[in-house]
Amino acid sequence: MYPPTPRTTSTRARQRMNYDRDAAHAVLDEAYHCTLGFVVDGEPRLLPTLHVRVDDTLYLHGSTGSRPLLAARSPDGLAVCVSVTLLDALVYARSQFHHSANYRSVVAHGTAHLVTDDQTKTEVLTALVDRFGPGRAADSRPPSRRELAETAVLALPLREVSTRVRSGGVGDDEEDLALPHWAGVVPLRLTPGTPEPDAGVSTPPPAYLPGTGTRR
Amino acid sequence: MYPPTPRTTSTRARQRMNYDRDAAHAVLDEAYHCTLGFVVDGEPRLLPTLHVRVDDTLYLHGSTGSRPLLAARSPDGLAVCVSVTLLDALVYARSQFHHSANYRSVVAHGTAHLVTDDQTKTEVLTALVDRFGPGRAADSRPPSRRELAETAVLALPLREVSTRVRSGGVGDDEEDLALPHWAGVVPLRLTPGTPEPDAGVSTPPPAYLPGTGTRR
Repeated sequence: MYPPTPRTTSTRARQRMNYDRDAAHAVLDEAYHCTLGFVVDGEPRLLPTLHVRVDDTLYLHGSTGSRPLLAARSPDGLAVCVSVTLLDALVYARSQFHHSANYRSVVAHGTAHLVTDDQTKTEVLTALVDRFGPGRAADSRPPSRRELAETAVLALPLREVSTRVRSGGVGDDEEDLALPHWAGVVPLRLTPGTPEPDAGVSTPPPAYLPGTGTRR
Repeated sequence: MYPPTPRTTSTRARQRMNYDRDAAHAVLDEAYHCTLGFVVDGEPRLLPTLHVRVDDTLYLHGSTGSRPLLAARSPDGLAVCVSVTLLDALVYARSQFHHSANYRSVVAHGTAHLVTDDQTKTEVLTALVDRFGPGRAADSRPPSRRELAETAVLALPLREVSTRVRSGGVGDDEEDLALPHWAGVVPLRLTPGTPEPDAGVSTPPPAYLPGTGTRR
């Protein structure tokens, strides 16, 4: 359990919130990308980026020249909020009011620091590349010293984390159930398509690619 | 064209940025959900939510009790940043360094205000429900006065908007091309599954449901 705090406590729909560690990790691990929020001159800024969770730290990938990564160089670090959303379904109610979406989302608050030590950075990049498929890091060329220096990694300790979930079916009011409109759920899934090899590639698509084992 | 401003100008990878109005609208219209960023006590906050674009205004759906919607009641409105990301593919390079993702993302900055007039609110909710399928609003029960009062809508004029796109293939360095690792692109698509009707629904799934026309 992550301890609920004022900023991870919802003013609304509290029954959809939870603070379970495993539930949050599962969402973070399934999503390929997150949204990094930070503040510049009192104004909100957002940056979509790729992430990887290792134990109880969320690592965000960036470029050494990007704004938040420059800001995170300060010894105080950078106050951030990171969110990840998986859209699972569209929910069609008979009433417009009860139209909804099924989703799983995680929001994490905290202070992010730049990862400066090369060994941690290498481990994080290995973990990040393995998100493209388990074993991909071993089946690709590791970063050179120059490439490692050009890559910035932000670390956010996972301490203040909430998960919000809407699942299940239609929530129509009793008195609307007899209306003639179709009602139900349309599931949505991020589906991998057929791998498209680069020019000159003669090896077959490796088994670790997403969807390779299950593609029809 | 949206005029570039300091906060929509990237410090990195500028060749991926554009300020084209139609390009931004296409991304906003394709994505079902966005991330709303705002600032509370100097700290960044994020809230995933549903949106709909009508002309050059982005409307965000919310609940009257939620924090940003309460904050946006002030006559000054609420300084927000909204981002939308569509993940199009995973890009497998021979080098770990050039692993990447194809995506289209839009970031919009500005001041959001609460929509107070009921006619605009009704129009926005109609447009929002029609995002579930064109014609869905006409094929569902409109909101009652009470429901309308319980729904809050934020309006963000689209003025400071940037679109970032990564598309195409693998960006490996020349000297890595002979490496034996598979390289290529795995497309990703948010795919609708088979509609699951609510209990008691006897009408067939309407043609406007996503994927209904093209499902195999």
